[in-house]
Formats: sequence, C-alpha cells, structure tokens
Amino acid sequence: MTGQVFGAPLRRKEDQRFLTGSATYIDDIELPDMLHAAILRSPYAHAHINAIDTAEAEGLEGVMAVFTYKDLGPIAEPLPLLIPHPALTHPHTQYALAKDTVRYVGEAVAMVVAQNRYIAEDALELIEVDYEPLPVVSPAHLAEATSAQAPRIHADAPTNIAAHLIQQVGDIDTAFAQAAHVFRRQVQLERSASQPIEGRGVLARFDAFEQALSVWDSTQGPISIRNGLAVLFGLPRDKVQVSAPDLGGGFGVKIMLFYPEEVLVPLAAIRLKRPVKWVEDRLEHMVASNHERGQVHDIEVAMDTEGHILGLRDIFLHDTGAYCPYGIIVPQITACQLPGPYKLPAYYSEATVVYTNRTPVSPYRGAGRPHGVFAMERIIDYAADQLGLDRAEIRRRNFIQPDEFPYDVGLVFQDGLPTRYDSGNYPAGLEQALQMIGYEQFREEQYRARAQDRYLGIGIGCYVEGTGIGPYEGAHIAIDTLGEIYVATGVSTQGQGHETTFAQIVAQELNVDIEKVHITTGDTRRFHWGTGTYASRAMVVAGNAIGLAARAIKKKAINLAASLLEAAPEDLELVEGRVCIQGSPERGLSLAALSIASNPIRYAYGANAPDLPAILPAPEGPPLPAGTEPGLEATQYFSPQHATFASGVHAAIIEVDIGTGQVKIRKYVVQHDCGKLVNPLVVEGQICGGVAQGIAGSFYEHLDYDDNGQLLNANYMDFLMPYASEIPHLEIGHIETPSPINPLGVKGAGEAGCIPVPALMAAALEDALAPFAALVDHMPLTPSEIRRLAHKGIR
Amino acid sequence: MTGQVFGAPLRRKEDQRFLTGSATYIDDIELPDMLHAAILRSPYAHAHINAIDTAEAEGLEGVMAVFTYKDLGPIAEPLPLLIPHPALTHPHTQYALAKDTVRYVGEAVAMVVAQNRYIAEDALELIEVDYEPLPVVSPAHLAEATSAQAPRIHADAPTNIAAHLIQQVGDIDTAFAQAAHVFRRQVQLERSASQPIEGRGVLARFDAFEQALSVWDSTQGPISIRNGLAVLFGLPRDKVQVSAPDLGGGFGVKIMLFYPEEVLVPLAAIRLKRPVKWVEDRLEHMVASNHERGQVHDIEVAMDTEGHILGLRDIFLHDTGAYCPYGIIVPQITACQLPGPYKLPAYYSEATVVYTNRTPVSPYRGAGRPHGVFAMERIIDYAADQLGLDRAEIRRRNFIQPDEFPYDVGLVFQDGLPTRYDSGNYPAGLEQALQMIGYEQFREEQYRARAQDRYLGIGIGCYVEGTGIGPYEGAHIAIDTLGEIYVATGVSTQGQGHETTFAQIVAQELNVDIEKVHITTGDTRRFHWGTGTYASRAMVVAGNAIGLAARAIKKKAINLAASLLEAAPEDLELVEGRVCIQGSPERGLSLAALSIASNPIRYAYGANAPDLPAILPAPEGPPLPAGTEPGLEATQYFSPQHATFASGVHAAIIEVDIGTGQVKIRKYVVQHDCGKLVNPLVVEGQICGGVAQGIAGSFYEHLDYDDNGQLLNANYMDFLMPYASEIPHLEIGHIETPSPINPLGVKGAGEAGCIPVPALMAAALEDALAPFAALVDHMPLTPSEIRRLAHKGIR
Repeated sequence: MTGQVFGAPLRRKEDQRFLTGSATYIDDIELPDMLHAAILRSPYAHAHINAIDTAEAEGLEGVMAVFTYKDLGPIAEPLPLLIPHPALTHPHTQYALAKDTVRYVGEAVAMVVAQNRYIAEDALELIEVDYEPLPVVSPAHLAEATSAQAPRIHADAPTNIAAHLIQQVGDIDTAFAQAAHVFRRQVQLERSASQPIEGRGVLARFDAFEQALSVWDSTQGPISIRNGLAVLFGLPRDKVQVSAPDLGGGFGVKIMLFYPEEVLVPLAAIRLKRPVKWVEDRLEHMVASNHERGQVHDIEVAMDTEGHILGLRDIFLHDTGAYCPYGIIVPQITACQLPGPYKLPAYYSEATVVYTNRTPVSPYRGAGRPHGVFAMERIIDYAADQLGLDRAEIRRRNFIQPDEFPYDVGLVFQDGLPTRYDSGNYPAGLEQALQMIGYEQFREEQYRARAQDRYLGIGIGCYVEGTGIGPYEGAHIAIDTLGEIYVATGVSTQGQGHETTFAQIVAQELNVDIEKVHITTGDTRRFHWGTGTYASRAMVVAGNAIGLAARAIKKKAINLAASLLEAAPEDLELVEGRVCIQGSPERGLSLAALSIASNPIRYAYGANAPDLPAILPAPEGPPLPAGTEPGLEATQYFSPQHATFASGVHAAIIEVDIGTGQVKIRKYVVQHDCGKLVNPLVVEGQICGGVAQGIAGSFYEHLDYDDNGQLLNANYMDFLMPYASEIPHLEIGHIETPSPINPLGVKGAGEAGCIPVPALMAAALEDALAPFAALVDHMPLTPSEIRRLAHKGIR
Repeated sequence: MTGQVFGAPLRRKEDQRFLTGSATYIDDIELPDMLHAAILRSPYAHAHINAIDTAEAEGLEGVMAVFTYKDLGPIAEPLPLLIPHPALTHPHTQYALAKDTVRYVGEAVAMVVAQNRYIAEDALELIEVDYEPLPVVSPAHLAEATSAQAPRIHADAPTNIAAHLIQQVGDIDTAFAQAAHVFRRQVQLERSASQPIEGRGVLARFDAFEQALSVWDSTQGPISIRNGLAVLFGLPRDKVQVSAPDLGGGFGVKIMLFYPEEVLVPLAAIRLKRPVKWVEDRLEHMVASNHERGQVHDIEVAMDTEGHILGLRDIFLHDTGAYCPYGIIVPQITACQLPGPYKLPAYYSEATVVYTNRTPVSPYRGAGRPHGVFAMERIIDYAADQLGLDRAEIRRRNFIQPDEFPYDVGLVFQDGLPTRYDSGNYPAGLEQALQMIGYEQFREEQYRARAQDRYLGIGIGCYVEGTGIGPYEGAHIAIDTLGEIYVATGVSTQGQGHETTFAQIVAQELNVDIEKVHITTGDTRRFHWGTGTYASRAMVVAGNAIGLAARAIKKKAINLAASLLEAAPEDLELVEGRVCIQGSPERGLSLAALSIASNPIRYAYGANAPDLPAILPAPEGPPLPAGTEPGLEATQYFSPQHATFASGVHAAIIEVDIGTGQVKIRKYVVQHDCGKLVNPLVVEGQICGGVAQGIAGSFYEHLDYDDNGQLLNANYMDFLMPYASEIPHLEIGHIETPSPINPLGVKGAGEAGCIPVPALMAAALEDALAPFAALVDHMPLTPSEIRRLAHKGIR
C-alpha cells in the first residue's frame, strides 16, 4: 500500500509470524552443540554462605561445568549501577553469583552448565550450600525497615535507607498555612510484577575462530548489553554482537544492565567454547526478575474554599528490594509525575528509598506513575468528597489550561532535564471521557440500581505521562541494489508493532509500498548506537530518527536522479519506488537503479537495473566528491530537548457484588492523547493491553510475601491474572495535540494504558460503596477485602 | 612507539603471525560440520558437451551433492562482465559451470561436495562427460587467431576479435612523414601467470537461523564479492558477509567478480545448509586461475636526427584467453602506460583483443605495464643503438622535465579519467640509478671482461606507473571505551603490511603507541564500501581515507575534551593517548574516558574511566545536538581526482655464460619514486618481491602450451621459478616527489618492482651479447634460447 500510510490503521506486518506460531523467541533458537544452563537460587531471604560444595554436581554425567562466585573471573565485581544519582547515598548491586551473602529468595548462587536442562537441574540438587540464616527485613509496614533498629541488609550503612530524595516547587509551608482546607490520606500500591508471556532468556555463542561473542538476549536494550559485555570481557565492541529476537513482552522488566544470567551465560560460552542457553522458568521469573510498585504515600493537599489546590505535600516510602541496580529512577518518576494535569502552586515531595529482603525493584510499565497517580487521584477524590464537590468538577478547577503550554512543572525529570509539558488539552480530554462514559446519565442509573441492592460506581482517573526521553536514538536506512529498503534502529521490540509503525513512517516519506520496507530493531550488528525501548520512547525517539533518515535518503535519491536525468531536483518526485520527473512518470529511475548508481564504481554487480545505462559516464573530478558518501544510505539521529508529555483520562462504571466482593466492570472508556497517531490500531492495542494490566494490578496480581521473605504464591495457581473474560470491551477516544518538540509530532503510548487504572478503580469502588462510607486506600484488593469494605465501611 | 612513526622503517606488526606459521589462511579455517568441494575441469581446450552423467558419483558414500549447469539455479547466467567498455564489441564471460561448451583446459564442468576432499576427488572420476572436441585456437602466432578463417570460439561474432581499441595523441602521420629516422621492432612478452604461495580458496557458511551467508574468500576485493553475492542470491546485503583472511599473495589474480568457485561454493553452502570449503590445488591454479602478459607489439618510432621522438606508433595483439571477464582493462593500461617518462608529440596505439582457447586473462602485477614498457624500452634502445647514441643519453633527451607537471599524456586512463602525471623527477631518477649501478665505470669493466671471454651487459629500464586510482575508499576509526583504536577499511591485504603502514598513519596523527592501533582490512562486517586492493591503490586511496578519518577523530576528541575540561580546543594536544592542556599534561582526559563521554548516556557501562566524573552534567538542550553523532568514531572517504603517477629506473649488470646460456645478475639497482614513504622497509620489501617476479618473468616462468591448448608444464617440476639464490641483492634508492593530489602525498608501490625488469634484462642481454649482434625481442628467454642468441647473433 502506498499513499497515506502514516496514520492509517494498518494491520501489523508481524502478526502473520506471531499468530501462526512462527516467531523466534530465545528458546526457539537451536544452535549446534548447544549446552544448557540452570541457576541455583537462594532459598533464604537473608543468609550468610559459609561454603559451597559442587563436587558431586560436577561429577554428574553430562555436566560440563559448575560456576560459583570464585569462578567468575572478569565478572567477579558487583554488577554495575545503571543510573547513579547524588541522592543515592548507599547504592548496592548484587554479584552475578552471591559472594558470601544472599539477600533475597531467588538470588543466584551457582550455575550449572550441562548437556541439557534436565541434567543441569538435577545437578543443582547435588550442590551443597552451607547457609547461615540472618534476620529478614520483609516488613508488613515498610516504615519499620527504615528504623535504626531494623536488621541491616547492607553492612556499610547505619540504616536500610538507600536514598533520600526531596523535590519542591513554590512555598509549601505558606500554602498550607493559608489553606482553607487541608486533606490527608495514607495510600499504598503494593509490590507487583509484570508477567510477560515469555520470561527472560539468554543464549551466547563464542566463535573461537572469530574470537567473537554473539548473544541473543530477551532484552529491551541490546546495545547497552553489548557495550557492557565488551567492557567486562575486554573484547573489542565489534567482536560482541547482541540481538533481541522476538520477545514475548517486556514491560520494563527486561531492561537491565545486567541481570546475573546476562553475564553468566556469556562467561560460560567463552569458557566452554560452546553455545550456552538459559531460559527462565516461571518460578524464576517470579523471584529472580525484578519487581515494582510497592510505595506508601502520606499525601496532604491544601485547598481554598472552592477546591483550588494551593499546595501538595507527599512523603513516601519506596521499597527497592535487596539492591538498587536501577538507582532511584522509579521514585524519581513518581515524584515528578504525581502532579499530573493539575496546577500545583506549591509542591513538596520527599521519597525515602528502603532496602528490604525482597527481589530488587526496577521500572515496570508505568514506572512509578501508577503509584503517583494513585496518590494524587485519591487525595483529589477525597478532597472533592469532603468539599461536596463533584469529582469531575474539582479536576476542572485545577487543570493546566490549553493556553499554558509549554508548562514548567518545576521538577527535574528522570532524564535530568526539566519536567516541561510540551502540549495537551486536559479539559477537552476530561469532557470527552465524561461524554463517552455517560457521566451525566450515570447518577440516575446508580440510584435506580441501589434500589435493587445493586452497587454501581463510577471512577475517573487523569494522568500525564512523560514519554520519549533522550538521550537519543538513531536510524540507518539503506536502499539496496534490488530496491528493497532496509531500516535499522537500535531500540528493540517486545510486541509494540514497530515493524509496521516504523515502516509506515518510511513508506510515507518515500511513497513506496510498505512491503518494500524491512525493519530491524534490537540487533547491534545492524545499528549499534542508542539505548533501548523503555519510557514509552521508541516511537518518539527512534521513530523520529527513522523519519529524519527517510527524509535524508529521499533527498539523496532525488539529487542523484537529478544529476542522472539532467533535471532539477525540485522537478522530481518519488512515485511507487521510482524518482520521476513530475508529470512524466515514464522519465524516471527506480530506487534500485539509483542504488546501483550511488556507488561510483564502474563495474557491474552481477545485475544491472534495466533503466540504468550499462556504462555510467565518467565523472569530472573525484568520483566521490569531497563530503559525500557512497551508497543510497542515510543515518540520522534524533535527540529530544526533553520528554514529551502524553495524557489521558480513563473512566469506568463498575458493579460490586457485596455478597461475594466480586467487581464487574460494566463500561470502560479511555480518552487518550499521544500526539499524532502513526497507527491508531497499534496504539489502541497498546492501550488495551495496558488497561488489562492495570485491572490486573487493581484486583488480581498480588505478591504474597511472608515475614521470612518467602514469596508464597510464586506460581500461576496462586498468583492470579485476569483472563480475557475479566477485561471489558474498551471504548477509546483520541485527542491529538501534536508534540511541538519532534518532527513527527508524536508522543509515547506504550505504558499509558495501565497508569490510571488502580486510581479510577479505587474511585469507582468508593463510589459504589458510598452507602457504606468505604474508603479505598490501597490496591490491589481481593474480593474478601472488597466484601469487608462493604461491610465495615472502612478498611 | 610514539613520536615520528610516519616514514619510519618499522618492522611489520603482522610478521609475528606470518613468521611463526600462525596466520589464518582459508585452509586454516575449520568450521563444525564442514564439507569439501572439488571441481571437475575440462580436459579439452575446446569441446561441445553432449551429456554429463553424475549418477555414479552421487552414489559414492560420503558424497553430499553433485552440481552441473542444470543445478545452478540463481547462478545459471554467465558470470558478470566486470568492466564494460564501448570498444569491447564482443564480450563473453563463462558460466560458473560450463553450459554446453568448454573453451579452455581447466574450465569448470561439475562440482562435487563431499565429507572430505578425498571423497570429492574420487567422485570427480566417476562423473562421465560426453565431450565432442572442437577445433582449437591456440596459435603459435597470435595474428592467426584474428583471421576470419580461424576456428570460432564464440559463435556470435565473425572473428575471434573481442575488441578493437584505438587511442591517439597529436598528428601521427605528419610525425612519421617528417621524421629523419623511423625504427621498427616486433616485440613480445609471452603469456605468464602469478604464483601466490597460497592458491585461491573459498569457504562459505549459510546460517539457516540467521538466513545469513558468511564467506571467507582469498580475494583482493571482498566488498565487490559481497555485493555480487547479495544480488545473485537475492539476499539483503546485510545478510551477506565476505571477509578475506590472511592471503598468501594476490598479485591481481585474486580479484575477480567472480571466479566460478566464488559462486559455486556459496551456492552449495546455501543448498546443503552446511559449511563448504574449496581450496585450489596447484594444478588448478595453473589452468583455472587467470593468466596475463601475452601481447605482440609492432612498434615504430619517428625521430629527428638527434634522437628526439617525434611520434610513436604501436599496434598490438592482446591474448585475452577464452573469455574477457575483466573487459579490456589490460590492453587499455598497456596503451596508456607505454609512453612512460617520455614526451611523445604524437602517439597512435591500436590494440586488438583476441579470444584464444586458453585460460582467461585478467590483470597480474604490473597489469599490462611490463608489456608496454618492454615495447617502449626495446624501441628506444634500438633507436639509440641505430643512431649510435648512448642508451642513457637518448632517454635524457626525451624525458618529461620536472617543471612540466602536471603533465597530460592525452590518453584516457584505465579509470576513464585523464592520464595526467601529477609529479615526478625523471632525469634525477635516471642519474641516481646510473650512479648506483656505476654506469660510467661499467664500459671499462665490460671491455676487460670480454677480453677474458666473459660477456657482461648493462641494461636500464624506465617506467611510469599510474597508481592509486579511484573511485574511492573509506575508513572507519572507532576508539572504544577501553581506549583501543580500531581502524577498518574496505581494501584487503595480501601481504603488503597494511596492519603496520595503516597503523603508522593513525599513530602519527593521534600521537599514540602504534600497538594501540588495530587495523582490519577486507571484512565487509567492519567496512563495506569500497572496491579492493589492486592497481597499487591501497595506500593511496585507503591510506588517505584513514588519514582523513584519523584527523576527524582527533578533532572530535579534542572538541569533546575541550567541553569537558572547559578549555579552548586550540589549547589542547594529544599526548600518549590523552588529550591534555598544553603544558599541563596532568590536566587531561584519556581517549578511553572521552570514548565513554562521547556517548551521551547517563548510565555507567560496567566500567568507568578513572579520570571521568561518575555522573556527567546534564546537558542543556538535546543531549546529542543536531548534526552530531554519538561515539568517538569517524568515517571518511578519499576519492582521488585521478591516478597518481609513480616512476622508477632500474639498472642491472649481468653476465652471460654463452656456453650454457646461463645469466648471472651481478648487480641490480632500483631507483624508485612513490612519493612520500610511509615505511621504507615495507616499500623496499614490495620492490624486492616485484623485482624477483620480474626476473622470474624474464628467464624462468613460462607457460608451455601445445597446439591442442594443453598446458604442458602445469606443475612445479616443469614450470620454473627462481629461488632466492637466483635473485641478487638489490640496492634501492628513493626519490620522494610527493603527490600533490592526496593529503599524504603518497603514490602506490605494490606493483612497481616487476614492471621494467624484462625490458632491462633484454637490454642487458643485448648489451652483453653485442659482439654477436644479438637482438632480444621476446621474453621470457630460456638458457637454450640465450645460448642460441649468442651463437646465431639474431633469434
């Protein structure tokens, strides 16, 4: 299809592969002579390791090697701290294999490499580890972990506090002093974790002849992995290639530098000179892949008599688990994004990051935002209720207005740059959502239902999401001598549909059939500068780089054609893969011909384009004039000034069965603004997935830790996830306020769906259970808890 | 070593590997599951193939596949014509496997792939080919092949003439009409062939998972091979990688696009999904790798009474063998380069390119020049003798003078650009050579020797060599986060010492230890634009690209350091791998630190440079400002305006034993001007090898064809090569007239050594045998022929 492809709701090119089971995940890759790794993990949340005896495991037939800390060689240092921060005064990362202490259940202690996974797992059971258990910090109340009396997780600090981060805007004390009303809540989103269909996996091959390491990694950031592996193993960067094949979901949990297995498996491949594969099983995913959420907010708002916010104070605890490999990026995002679409004349945010004997925390879809939005929307709803204001109306009164962009929130964003909203229309978004949900009509329906002992509730949730952070991404486009268009960018893909959406950008710019455009993501052999896919940034940063590269290659093709056709560039146009003289489509050259001609070599290449003269005229002067490069290729980078801020309003009507505590979602609407839509179908798919994940986080997914730091429900019998039957049909409405700070005008859309869901579900629950004066201050909620809310009125 | 490394006579970095037998040639590469190919070759010089029966061969245990023409699929078309030319009216290239006709002994007819080479060769003997012999064109006198009565090699043309190429300058007829003297000779260099220590070889692997083809090829042009294979097999260019590992010599014979094996082996690897290797044996090299030389010149010169040339007419026949894969580049070079250092007011050159039933011809070191120089120097010597002028004096009278550069010869060079000499000093070169050889003193010694029946002779040979033709080469330099400097260029290396000389350019520019500089040549994974190593062009074209890239990366490093050190770029200098403030070496940043800082990512990479702050300041504006690129990397291209012209004068004193016909070279001097010398030791090594090859071509190497087109001496018992004992010590003197058309001022030096040798050996023979009035009009000469010359006086 050519013509208007940018913005068209095309079906995904990759679906053919995904829907027929022919995608290639790590576990689908079989290399000759491949070995298999399995990891021995700590059964204790906190323990000293006195000794490890691997002799019996090593003796098992089919075992090739057993690795413990002492075997780590170049990777015996603690794994890197991904993002340092001055407020992070006590950073700690783990060793690839525990050196002498384990600090969470699931921490890697030893690795067995064997001829198959069965033997490797059998050998794990033969390893004798002499553990000496230590006191566990796994508090029912996170605050206890911060006290000087709590058992210490890392010996070098006076408490378990890793960081203390304060950000503020305006004069908070005056705001509170002058307020007509002050409202306070303590609210909490509990620790949770994402559940990609495919767990993590790493396959490494070391080619002894080439002295080159190839790694296939289910990572969202192969370039960083490549760069890190090259440094750790002292290899030239060109001798290390990392690619992320098809990934069954990422959600943030797959962007680390490094998980232990990401260095252990390459180490084994180098040592054993055979390919080694490790694929995470579900139990491992539950305990050894990072978690998130897990914050307790004490939030208070100062308001005037009409419900205008004068100031907001939010003091929160962030559970970072046993280590903080990602620094303090999650609480930093929470602090910056909590204000949402509202004007806060004064704002004080204070985060305390606490070590606990639990799995480490790193960003999970939404990355700190669901927590912040939960706190903000809960206090707003509470204030409205207390003031007797409609919950929609109080929002209207506090929105940043469309004429106030760019709007400086006054905080430092996660990228170290200002939190500066670039565009948006929050009032219009709210009105659209209210219209879609039938806000006006709802109260009557609710009233009628109550008369039948049916409890309906409505909730709305607003959020602003900083997306598309830098530092940059790049793209390379090459048109080969067959006229096929190869696009490569450094970001990887975990199911976002980039093969389609990135191709739409190129097909639009070059006016070619989208089937001619081939996208490669996440393969350092094809593009090796950039960071990765996270922070809803792939389309904003890589998409714009691709757009710029497409524009550059178009210009190159037209200029080249102009010289060959002896025409002025401005008289030429690109039509169906040919550069033609406008109005004379027969006078033109195919992109294939131009690709051949772009390399100023007088030799035929085994194939000539039929429309190209066999012998090109000899040039006057150098065949490749100074400052030019051969080939119909272009590389461009896009580096945003700062994040671009998407926004949205979700609203839902639920019905609560107060007998069983079951919640039925009767209607769910999404109003969404991510700037220009490249492909509405793909954006809506992202939103649907996100909402489902938000619903999961509201009512189902719960990590049930006991006081010994044991995760009691690390399996799919006990850890609940919603089926499709629990997810309602979504109505989605778009507003497009194009971003003024990138050429495509796009904003990120990957995480949005899940951000406001717990907030609005809490609101809807409170609304449904208003007759019982229920207050919802934490999520997720089980049916028992909901039933209790209805019956006790207050938790 | 840092300091002045450009121009220093460093020992070669690669010698360690070469001299300890640890280099990696094609045959050293063993891949798992590798299969081996062998080629069935035509025993007839000309025959029709009625049928091929492969059944028995296919049935042999261990045989995986047998390929004949019908199995070729995507490679069933004639192999490409590498360089078309308008004068090439009847181009013909061969099929990868003969379709229905074989036209030379050794032409590929079938390929067997088997578990090992032994089985593959056994299977060849089981293939039944029904040949119907055809009349053979293998003339004792090349002229016979051109006649309309000769048997026809290709059916589509009235004769065996492939091309007819005329070039002329000035008014040749008037020149001859006005001449005081006209001298004529018919001279001939016979067909010859290079003998690299390593023959050709191809190894191909097709990775079914990656759908990627990897080829290791003993080629001088891996990029062209890659581009061609991608087109032939319909693969994206990124999915085809070709690298040339260590090569045991190239000499031109290894730059083809394609030899049959270069497409057959990849085809087999793709079909069989296993690595396939083929390594040429010596018999195959003799008949199935291209030949050269093989021209007959009718040359006449018009002179005034003082020996000034008024005009030169050269009409020659060029034997191109059964096909002309390279077009007519060899006779074109002959025609352009024949004038050498002499001013020719009028010049007429007419080449007739003739098909014969012999191995095809493509450039071999010197590439048409030894033939042209042989003709030119023979007629000059003859004219001097006839005019009673000293052979040196007649040259002095005709030289282009140092103040006449740039000097336009008025001919179209092999690259389609003007033959424009850029610099040189031919008179000084001659005087230096005469001085070195002891020209003045020689006559007396000669006279004394004759009195003892010892026949001494002196010969001088002058030449000009166009080197460093375009279109371009490029280079990429990356300084990695460990501070190592990786340089890649597209040209390949066959023993020229590029790992040392290219590194000298970079080490000089960056002022770093040369051991930190790592050069990769000829690997499309590392650099994939360019053409290859031929035409004495690698140092000129790739070397200058490397120099430009080094300059660019230095600028990038200094600018980056300036911003980090808050200093002005002009106050910084590069010292021992650090950018420092001039005079304050302690205030600086290592290249490793700058490499880390060059990627504007706020994450640690598993290793930080100790001199870099852990957290770089957040940028103002985009982290990667528009128009900049991440990384301490640079890519630059160099595209010369036209060739740069090296020159030289060789002189030798020989002694002829008229009893045995043996020639002893008593003294051999080389005066050489290749512009600026990057490494005199390496240049002299190249010259020595070239002179040895020239001596080989003068007296030893001879391809002995019979009338049936059978090569009778295709083995090292019968095909003679000189040992070290036959090669004299060489005295080498340099003049450096820097090329004004490239930044380094260099000219090519790879081929020079062999160019004038047959000419001056002929001259010395004639001089030694002057008492017998011997005329030497062809080379090589055997002892029997030399003995006959002495006894018959004339051949």
